[in-house]
Amino acid sequence: MQRSRLLRQMDVALGKYPCDLLLRDATYLDVFSLRWITTDIAVCDGHVVAVDRGLKANQEISVKGKSIVPGFIDAHVHVESSMLVPGNFQKAVLPRGTTTAICDPHELANVQGVSGIEYFLKASEQLELDLRVMLSSCVPATDFETNGAGHLAASALTPLRRHHKALGLAEVMNVPGVLQGDTEVWDKLDAFSDGVIDGHCPLLRGSALSAYALAGISSCHESTQLDEAAEKLSKGLAVWIREGSVAKDLNVLAPLLTVASSAAVGFCTDDRNPLDIATEGHLDFLIRGAIRLGVPKEAAYRAASWSVARHYGLKRVGAIAPGYRADLVILGDAETCAVDEVIVGGKRLGDCDLPSASIDGFGNSIRAKAPAPEALQGPQGRVHVIVVRDGRILTDRLVLDSLAKGVARLSVLERYGKGSPPANAYVQGFGENFRGAIASSVGHDSHNLIVVGTDTRDMAMALECLVQSGGGYCLMQDGIEIGSLPLPLGGLMSAHDAPHVQIELAKLRMASKQMGCELKEPFLQLAFLSLPVIPTLKLTDKGLVDVDAFKLIDVRAA
Amino acid sequence: MQRSRLLRQMDVALGKYPCDLLLRDATYLDVFSLRWITTDIAVCDGHVVAVDRGLKANQEISVKGKSIVPGFIDAHVHVESSMLVPGNFQKAVLPRGTTTAICDPHELANVQGVSGIEYFLKASEQLELDLRVMLSSCVPATDFETNGAGHLAASALTPLRRHHKALGLAEVMNVPGVLQGDTEVWDKLDAFSDGVIDGHCPLLRGSALSAYALAGISSCHESTQLDEAAEKLSKGLAVWIREGSVAKDLNVLAPLLTVASSAAVGFCTDDRNPLDIATEGHLDFLIRGAIRLGVPKEAAYRAASWSVARHYGLKRVGAIAPGYRADLVILGDAETCAVDEVIVGGKRLGDCDLPSASIDGFGNSIRAKAPAPEALQGPQGRVHVIVVRDGRILTDRLVLDSLAKGVARLSVLERYGKGSPPANAYVQGFGENFRGAIASSVGHDSHNLIVVGTDTRDMAMALECLVQSGGGYCLMQDGIEIGSLPLPLGGLMSAHDAPHVQIELAKLRMASKQMGCELKEPFLQLAFLSLPVIPTLKLTDKGLVDVDAFKLIDVRAA
Repeated sequence: MQRSRLLRQMDVALGKYPCDLLLRDATYLDVFSLRWITTDIAVCDGHVVAVDRGLKANQEISVKGKSIVPGFIDAHVHVESSMLVPGNFQKAVLPRGTTTAICDPHELANVQGVSGIEYFLKASEQLELDLRVMLSSCVPATDFETNGAGHLAASALTPLRRHHKALGLAEVMNVPGVLQGDTEVWDKLDAFSDGVIDGHCPLLRGSALSAYALAGISSCHESTQLDEAAEKLSKGLAVWIREGSVAKDLNVLAPLLTVASSAAVGFCTDDRNPLDIATEGHLDFLIRGAIRLGVPKEAAYRAASWSVARHYGLKRVGAIAPGYRADLVILGDAETCAVDEVIVGGKRLGDCDLPSASIDGFGNSIRAKAPAPEALQGPQGRVHVIVVRDGRILTDRLVLDSLAKGVARLSVLERYGKGSPPANAYVQGFGENFRGAIASSVGHDSHNLIVVGTDTRDMAMALECLVQSGGGYCLMQDGIEIGSLPLPLGGLMSAHDAPHVQIELAKLRMASKQMGCELKEPFLQLAFLSLPVIPTLKLTDKGLVDVDAFKLIDVRAA
Repeated sequence: MQRSRLLRQMDVALGKYPCDLLLRDATYLDVFSLRWITTDIAVCDGHVVAVDRGLKANQEISVKGKSIVPGFIDAHVHVESSMLVPGNFQKAVLPRGTTTAICDPHELANVQGVSGIEYFLKASEQLELDLRVMLSSCVPATDFETNGAGHLAASALTPLRRHHKALGLAEVMNVPGVLQGDTEVWDKLDAFSDGVIDGHCPLLRGSALSAYALAGISSCHESTQLDEAAEKLSKGLAVWIREGSVAKDLNVLAPLLTVASSAAVGFCTDDRNPLDIATEGHLDFLIRGAIRLGVPKEAAYRAASWSVARHYGLKRVGAIAPGYRADLVILGDAETCAVDEVIVGGKRLGDCDLPSASIDGFGNSIRAKAPAPEALQGPQGRVHVIVVRDGRILTDRLVLDSLAKGVARLSVLERYGKGSPPANAYVQGFGENFRGAIASSVGHDSHNLIVVGTDTRDMAMALECLVQSGGGYCLMQDGIEIGSLPLPLGGLMSAHDAPHVQIELAKLRMASKQMGCELKEPFLQLAFLSLPVIPTLKLTDKGLVDVDAFKLIDVRAA
């Protein structure tokens, strides 16, 4: 099968038969040497078969004056954060040049366990996008939270490795577990020691970082400081520069990416919402930004393709060369990463039949009852307050009076049917004039219901709205719903396509501004306030977590 | 086992226990970013465990002012060409900084088949040198020759893959077989399609090169022209720059190796004799030369380590970082690659117990009878003459009179017991004043007996000497043996160690000069005159091979 395909492709390369598609007068990037080469690119059976002149073709495109680069590879993405199912996600990102995505279905896995991972593996079989699946290592992320899946052990993950789109072990967030030799963590590290293991170690430095790398972990996408990223790189962790909708590291990390380092650096979006994909872009946005910040464009395009493919051992993906999958981005201008056309798996994107996305098998995953407003009252007086900053998922912390200006209420409600009371605390940063409530069923990583607000009645009503819709976002002010976006698939994803979700999200953003919210992306930012693997202070359904000390603490300050 | 080792190493990295060895004040090359970093390097259980300050150690070395680089990796070597068994080979190359060698036991495999490959796999288990074995793909190299092993089919090779030191399929030299879909060749390509497959395609260009790359072949060490090498690189073949004892490509190819290309370029010695290893060096000689030729030293050291390790999927080899095998070269001067000390697998080379090499299991492999002098008479008159050039394994060709000045006789005698008569032809290039005979049982790749001479009696006597000694080299002049080096192990290797072989070889070189031979390295150069996969004209036991036309031709010119 493989042999007959290769022999046919060889004959095409040798000029015995016409190729399917010829890009005439292509100036393409040789990612191996970072030179631009002008020739013809011949495509057959989904692969580049030759980069030579004089071949026959069934279809030709003249690409004279354009720059051709390999399709972009997102080194680490939670597709769920696009709020789109994979079939709709590809429709949003393929036109941007992203042709491979290495996803971690960590969100859906927390909601529904192994079946959440299997959903993405199955979806990957039906996409034009080359979707690779890292198997979620930290479900739940910590013991400080309740998720829907319980603990996913090594024994649950290893059978999934057999799938041809499964790549390795996804981001290992439990840094203390790694360093202290935690059995459950090490069972997974052992099980995947012959494969690739992604890391997640924000702010980790020095000998603790050395010990973490020793464990066999070989990447990190959580660097937020340049010297931190350089240290990780030097200790053998590939650095994925992330620019999500909230976590934005490109400005700080761009100087790391040079011609010299480009083979060990990549780009990722991690969590990027569909509005940002539509308005700013996807990987193209990161590449454009990197070049604008002074990164040599050849280094940027290599980092966006070959470097990541090599790291993950993707065979014959990530370069324009004979035998490689014909994922090609035709650029009107390489300097600004202006995407004219995309060829994915040898097909012009416009000719691809991208079917409607499958949304089978989902029911309402919200099994909570909205609490009474009184139940959302936190302790009064001097309290530990989470301080959120625009565009960062790392939080700061302060001790303030619970009634201080700009301090809002924050509650997390367990949603998997345990019936626990909400955990209540405080947050600063949504704005001094913020008034009302914003609730979300997206609450990393266990995806309990999280609500920020100034009025417990609005907060309770917003939670009730989520319970009814099966999840999503809801904005309440003075007892009136002023915006909502249902995400009924696992409480994370919409059944609709990107344009629909983008419009709804744009409306929500405007509504949040009208409520006095000062954060540009309040929804994902809210969603990260419950993630206890990112410093420094977070709130889960079990209470307030001091991430640095890695323990639950009282909301009341001593 | 692995887990307990890693947990112990982590504790050492975290400072709980002392490490085995600490390199204090090390300035080492971070091959990921090509920066030099000054810190301490901590080694435990054979691995680097930390690159951090302040760790305890059982033993410390101050390396202030030195440069530390990862141990060098020879990307492609036939150990047999060193005339040393693996245990003696490591004693010759480890002090030069070569700590990993990717070998192809192609020579011994041609002589004795699968057992020749198994000999190297078994040897690899007992070495400090990290010896990896590519499984020989072309035994015999062509059908134009008789070897001792017969045809090694895919089914003979695949069981060998299970050995932990077996890496993939060695150099696929049968280019026409690849391009024409030859079943035997493609059975091997198929069997190794999930692994790494080395190439060998001298002078191949254009769409034929594209087709060759399509077959899944991912490296070539046979480039002799800069634009040829650049084209191979762009078509997805990693380029190994070779500097052997005969084939010397460094001067021409050095400009290919830049910071930009360094992740896809490496160095190899292919065939290097022990005298050159002793007098010039091994990988250190190539690195030194590359830097002298203008290659940025950081790019040279990366190409000599990480790039090759990544290409072959060697996990945690080829860099100085936590978890990597502690193969470290301490340089007095990085610019001249002056090796002060070598640490291999965490041990200082001086402390290593390098046992005497095993030479069990070999008998006399020469099963030929020396022919009578008359049998070595070639056709007279206008003949096709092989033209050999100093330092090149590619030959030229001329039509000359058999008695022309500077034309010597060349014969190849099948040595595996078939009793065939010798094949006789002519060669130019050994020198106008060359007189006598040089015979060798090293005759790539089938290792029949090859003899060059001006006098058929000397030639017959030299062959008789090889038959008696079990192989090696023999120099005869006027009926007197003026030098010989027995290589009784497969007719390829000595049982003695490097210093002994070096001295004997030096004596042979001097003797060959006294015979009027003008070639600096006549022995390996002679050995390559029977290799019909290297253009353009070669002599095997079956006759004269026109390599370009890939057919046997008459010695008499039309």
